[in-house]
Amino acid sequence: MLPTLTDLDQFRDLLVNAPGPDSAARAGAEARNGQLTKPPGALGRLEDVAIWYAGWRGDARPRIEAPQVIVFAGNHGVTAQGVSAFPAEVTVQMVMNFEHGGAAINQLARAAGARMDVHALELDRPTQDFTQAPAMTKAELLTALQTGWAAVDPAADLLVVGEMGIGNTTPAAAIAHALYGGTAGDWTGRGTGVDDAGLANKTRVVAEGVARHTSRDGLEVLRCLGGRELAAMAGAIAAARQLRIPVILDGFICTAAAATLAAVAPDALDHAIAGHQSAEGAHGALLAKLGKEALLSLGLRLGEGSGAALAINIVRSAVACHSGMATFAEAGVSDG
Amino acid sequence: MLPTLTDLDQFRDLLVNAPGPDSAARAGAEARNGQLTKPPGALGRLEDVAIWYAGWRGDARPRIEAPQVIVFAGNHGVTAQGVSAFPAEVTVQMVMNFEHGGAAINQLARAAGARMDVHALELDRPTQDFTQAPAMTKAELLTALQTGWAAVDPAADLLVVGEMGIGNTTPAAAIAHALYGGTAGDWTGRGTGVDDAGLANKTRVVAEGVARHTSRDGLEVLRCLGGRELAAMAGAIAAARQLRIPVILDGFICTAAAATLAAVAPDALDHAIAGHQSAEGAHGALLAKLGKEALLSLGLRLGEGSGAALAINIVRSAVACHSGMATFAEAGVSDG
Repeated sequence: MLPTLTDLDQFRDLLVNAPGPDSAARAGAEARNGQLTKPPGALGRLEDVAIWYAGWRGDARPRIEAPQVIVFAGNHGVTAQGVSAFPAEVTVQMVMNFEHGGAAINQLARAAGARMDVHALELDRPTQDFTQAPAMTKAELLTALQTGWAAVDPAADLLVVGEMGIGNTTPAAAIAHALYGGTAGDWTGRGTGVDDAGLANKTRVVAEGVARHTSRDGLEVLRCLGGRELAAMAGAIAAARQLRIPVILDGFICTAAAATLAAVAPDALDHAIAGHQSAEGAHGALLAKLGKEALLSLGLRLGEGSGAALAINIVRSAVACHSGMATFAEAGVSDG
Repeated sequence: MLPTLTDLDQFRDLLVNAPGPDSAARAGAEARNGQLTKPPGALGRLEDVAIWYAGWRGDARPRIEAPQVIVFAGNHGVTAQGVSAFPAEVTVQMVMNFEHGGAAINQLARAAGARMDVHALELDRPTQDFTQAPAMTKAELLTALQTGWAAVDPAADLLVVGEMGIGNTTPAAAIAHALYGGTAGDWTGRGTGVDDAGLANKTRVVAEGVARHTSRDGLEVLRCLGGRELAAMAGAIAAARQLRIPVILDGFICTAAAATLAAVAPDALDHAIAGHQSAEGAHGALLAKLGKEALLSLGLRLGEGSGAALAINIVRSAVACHSGMATFAEAGVSDG
């Protein structure tokens, strides 16, 4: 069962002492994979995905029947710096669109056979502009983490977390720059489509934020440079780990939020796979820092959990092959 | 309606005079795409796929509700040359496995919500060894084309064709070498897993076949160097064009079969998209010759239609976003 989240030190302890995969289930899945009616390795990455999934679920022959998609929304004080091509009012408008079923993620979740939940986090109370102050207080960070932590359905067997928040590629870039160094320009991209001047301004903002907030502790980086929807995604990913629910990471913002957990505990994302490599420029580099390679690369740069939702059926298909195929012996097929 | 296939000249005429996409539906889909609640281009390739699909279906706001997967199986005289790591008896054993639901493609078709059909083409009568004679007579080619042509459900709205045939990467490599030149080694790979000596032998066999059969006409290449399941795939892809059913191409063998149609009529594959780039070495080069880039690249090298089936949900998701999303005006979202 999932413990109640009460304070940041407890959250940190849970990350550091998180459960690992079930090695017996994983070994059982590896043995089964070698007996299935196909040439060795012929299902490519699907084989690795199925074995990984089996280990985390503690079942050598699992099924995926209850995927959950959760979209978290937040607003950002840093939009006062002119970092987005869209006005901040679009965040609440898009939340209404999610609730009415009109957004891309609604269609993608339905096509994936996934339950979808939407959590708007105090949209009328944006975070602080991180060029001026920490984005959140410790209490605000804890509340946002709790929202994500409690949003995960313990009965889910696969989790996608996505986000909506005008301006939120800027905190994501700041988190990546704080955690991994380089220059602000290395991590700053065009988001929903700022022009050259907008990109230069955004890069300045990222550099100023990272220079002002000097702690490189994962949770402090999340608090000072992140945002409520990023913290909620981090909370949900951490809760899924406690529940042994495998996670598909989405794009640049989701991955930056996840990276703060890996900064606290290096294995904190072992139960997560990268669904889609975003067209947002630095996402590939960010995934590389986490040692992950995305399943898909189709040029999406939308957020909302869209790229990860698109990968649900890939993971489900991998597991369906693994668990549903006949063995050579069962099918009476000659084995090479 | 689909005309009955009666002779090879008629088939050739149907390829040359095949219907194109509906330009009004395509234009309508492009206009709709620009109004959906997302930043321009933010769904990446999904947007192109949806517009392409809309044009072929003649519907600016289509749905995918009836995908069909067809697996064709054939046996190859060229296996006498020792080109495969598996014995030829595996073809009929795998057909039984398909019929009993135990193969990878059964699981993948089910996960994609697709109907699946299996057609075994005279497995007890392998084609001729193409190093000695044309693989098929004209009558045999026509029969195989007809099998594929008649296998397509006119009510399907998306088609995947796959294959099973021990030894059939060898005819596929020979087709590619005949159509596109280079050396036999450029197009010959390890298939289900031959060793270095096996690869050298296979390359010799491909070179001998292509040297013996000198016509470079698409249908003659298919007849002399192909096989029954390759011809059936070509027939099904051509029938889908007449029915305006978009096609997802599978791996190296499926793509080689399809390439013979493009050799007859350069636009013959405009209704087809590449689903997955196989780990079989030359598949990427073959797709490049056809001007196609695969949606997925997950290291599969199984055939059966597996890579294409895995892409069904990607195409379905693209179309679902396109047709199901709200416009900015409908959702009351500010447009940038």
